[in-house]
Amino acid sequence: MLLSGEYIAGFVDGEGCFSITIGKHHTTKNRLDPRLNFEIELRGDDREVLEMIAETLGCGRIYELNYDRYGWYPHVKLKISGIKDIAEKIIPFFRKYSLFAKKRFSFEIFCQAAKVFEDKQHLTKEGIEKLIYLKTQMNKYSSRSSIRQGAGKPRARREES
Amino acid sequence: MLLSGEYIAGFVDGEGCFSITIGKHHTTKNRLDPRLNFEIELRGDDREVLEMIAETLGCGRIYELNYDRYGWYPHVKLKISGIKDIAEKIIPFFRKYSLFAKKRFSFEIFCQAAKVFEDKQHLTKEGIEKLIYLKTQMNKYSSRSSIRQGAGKPRARREES
Repeated sequence: MLLSGEYIAGFVDGEGCFSITIGKHHTTKNRLDPRLNFEIELRGDDREVLEMIAETLGCGRIYELNYDRYGWYPHVKLKISGIKDIAEKIIPFFRKYSLFAKKRFSFEIFCQAAKVFEDKQHLTKEGIEKLIYLKTQMNKYSSRSSIRQGAGKPRARREES
Repeated sequence: MLLSGEYIAGFVDGEGCFSITIGKHHTTKNRLDPRLNFEIELRGDDREVLEMIAETLGCGRIYELNYDRYGWYPHVKLKISGIKDIAEKIIPFFRKYSLFAKKRFSFEIFCQAAKVFEDKQHLTKEGIEKLIYLKTQMNKYSSRSSIRQGAGKPRARREES
């Protein structure tokens, strides 16, 4: 079932995550492996809405995550990291259906990072430096910039009933 | 600024919370104080979108929450608990703009609970028993039903960048 674009924009403003990761890589020239990710992670019993979002966006894979080691329910994650899907589907989608929460700033930086990938600059030292800079800018709007880490939202709230 | 109804439905499917609370009260006949709450809680720097949601819904008060004791950023909460606003604004709103995540089940139970209040049955023993039953039904869809409490979403996810 397809959802409205505005519904997805609202959902993503609450639960979506635009990110740049710079991992290590053994074989690339710079030994760094920059990636773009757009993700939505929910509890496993909310898989259905994630499937509808993926169908509406026209891309993305859904992964099952096992958190038994923490005593948590399983989760599901919709992940889109291919530059083609990001440039041709995700970015045009959120240009059309606006974000209104502070996540819109992360999205704008994400768009700048996507340009680096589209221009193949992510394979160069200068491109990676630009991505590292954009990542630090993006972190200003993320939970990582909390007073202490992992403090995006009080866990107590999730215990309310 | 007014937001689209679909946007708000998406946002609420991610971040909203419909709840029934049964507190203690010193003066009521049953010494119990049942309440309905519709809430959205966000980090304090996302107050702007909460104000737009309140403006669009046409009701609700925004509270500032201080979590210094946990080392967390301040939060803001939009809260609607008056039965008049719930019955005349919130319920018709989400009847018109559908929820699609599992939160729609909580919303349906919330509507049944609102009927108890509208009929003034929340002042009777039978009405309170019905609300307690509905609350247990609602908890099946909430994070409280996690394998262990407070495990709605892995904190690690919020540390990603």
